[in-house]
Amino acid sequence: MITKLLNEIQKKDAPIVVGLDPMEKFIPTYIKKKAYDEYGQTLKGISEAIYEYNKGIVDAVCDLVPAVKPQIAMYEQFGIEGLMAYKKTVDYCKSKGLIVIGDVKRGDIGSTSASYAVAHLGKVKVGDELIPVFDEDMATVNPYLGTDGVKPFVDVCKAEDKGIFVLVKTSNPSSGELQDKICDGKHVYELMAEYVNKWGEDVMEGNYSNVGAVVGATYPEVGKALREIMPKTLILVPGYGAQGGKGADLVHFFNKDGLGAIINSSRGIIAAYQSEAYASYGEENYADASRAAVIAMKEDIKSALK
Amino acid sequence: MITKLLNEIQKKDAPIVVGLDPMEKFIPTYIKKKAYDEYGQTLKGISEAIYEYNKGIVDAVCDLVPAVKPQIAMYEQFGIEGLMAYKKTVDYCKSKGLIVIGDVKRGDIGSTSASYAVAHLGKVKVGDELIPVFDEDMATVNPYLGTDGVKPFVDVCKAEDKGIFVLVKTSNPSSGELQDKICDGKHVYELMAEYVNKWGEDVMEGNYSNVGAVVGATYPEVGKALREIMPKTLILVPGYGAQGGKGADLVHFFNKDGLGAIINSSRGIIAAYQSEAYASYGEENYADASRAAVIAMKEDIKSALK
Repeated sequence: MITKLLNEIQKKDAPIVVGLDPMEKFIPTYIKKKAYDEYGQTLKGISEAIYEYNKGIVDAVCDLVPAVKPQIAMYEQFGIEGLMAYKKTVDYCKSKGLIVIGDVKRGDIGSTSASYAVAHLGKVKVGDELIPVFDEDMATVNPYLGTDGVKPFVDVCKAEDKGIFVLVKTSNPSSGELQDKICDGKHVYELMAEYVNKWGEDVMEGNYSNVGAVVGATYPEVGKALREIMPKTLILVPGYGAQGGKGADLVHFFNKDGLGAIINSSRGIIAAYQSEAYASYGEENYADASRAAVIAMKEDIKSALK
Repeated sequence: MITKLLNEIQKKDAPIVVGLDPMEKFIPTYIKKKAYDEYGQTLKGISEAIYEYNKGIVDAVCDLVPAVKPQIAMYEQFGIEGLMAYKKTVDYCKSKGLIVIGDVKRGDIGSTSASYAVAHLGKVKVGDELIPVFDEDMATVNPYLGTDGVKPFVDVCKAEDKGIFVLVKTSNPSSGELQDKICDGKHVYELMAEYVNKWGEDVMEGNYSNVGAVVGATYPEVGKALREIMPKTLILVPGYGAQGGKGADLVHFFNKDGLGAIINSSRGIIAAYQSEAYASYGEENYADASRAAVIAMKEDIKSALK
């Protein structure tokens, strides 16, 4: 999977992933109105609105970017209906040739992580049948439980040609409370980076592994250190845009081959029409605003990498 | 919520939670056959079987224990249908007077954790409506992202009278890879325990907080140390039974008031009929075997606590 992702990044010349994290307030009023008129202000109503909204964005940006990253929490909050919209979004994005990174941040004891791995990347056994479930291409994984919790995902990556991104240094303000602590002379994020290297050894494709890492754009110096510790790891970089990360901050997340990182933007793209810069599009043209925001982001990163 | 849980523990004289973690291999053949005959070997088929299986166990043990802990991964692996069985299980358990601890181990950056908190413990806003979603009573939370990731759950606990259990020291073999590391002169699990105290301050009810902690039965010495660091924290203790924890290991997880811990057993109860000790029940009477296993567990803990 990692080769496919790297190829798509190069083909589209865009180390960019669009975060499909629909909040109710991002969705244009006319889309919500239509859905609420049909289904009421219900979980089904909002879920229909989310899917319509997502489709518009996906149609507008699918030729520009290699991948999307739906944040499952934004769907899970609307229950079963929301998760149906998640699954429909995953399938729709795949039908448009996009690689789908499920931002699920699952992680548990071994046997339980195996179930999560199956749910998101594998096939589940029912009687004599093997059935794909949410079937994303890649997923994010929480490493708090250690190797037990991550290994089942790696095993599924190997069997099904999928990939994961392990949380190493997250983009949020309080990530340092645990991740920046120093133990055995190194930061927790460095320790986790070494585990990422180890977990990734068994699922290498050429220069990169199917075990990637999450490192927030909001900590560029940490990104630089982690880039060196994990030379064969694709880094998924959240925190660009709305969370404060800028193009210039991103340079050190990349390897000298110009690869090695993929930058996520969510709100900055999917709700572009609500920002001053793209307000002139109006909500009817929210998807065009998203497209313009992707093009601007591409330029920002490109000029930073020059 | 914590007061309600403690009252139920005392009323039923059982600091026990039954882990509803249905694996296909645990479900009696006759239940699976009926479901597969009706719905095929499909996600719907297995999900119907899971719900029937759960109902049998819940009916057999609901007068004996205060709480159940469905592990959502075991349902999520069967997709939307599986999650419908999860939701039906939550509702059924609540209708039987049981407190439901959703073992979801969610945790993310602030705004995303807020969505997870709403999904599992709160109500989601849709237009002008506020709608409960999965609506468990309590949930487990992963602290890798620090205060940002946990605080939204605490806020919902406060608003909705719910509770959480934060992962501190998990029961799995590799939990020490991160959790046992020493930073600033203390183990990571001690550091997290101090955070649990802090996060819990704002949601105290009498002697206990609505912010509890997860500490595995498989590490009794760690349990003893953590009991002292977190005197006002209810400890949810997984790892009893199938994972190797024994009654005698549990003593130090309790406070001197005889409270302070609730012990989980999953496989040892829900698949009791498959173990040698309860094989005589036969699969038709799997639920009676589960009841007998709960009674034996109660005795084991009681004699250890004497």
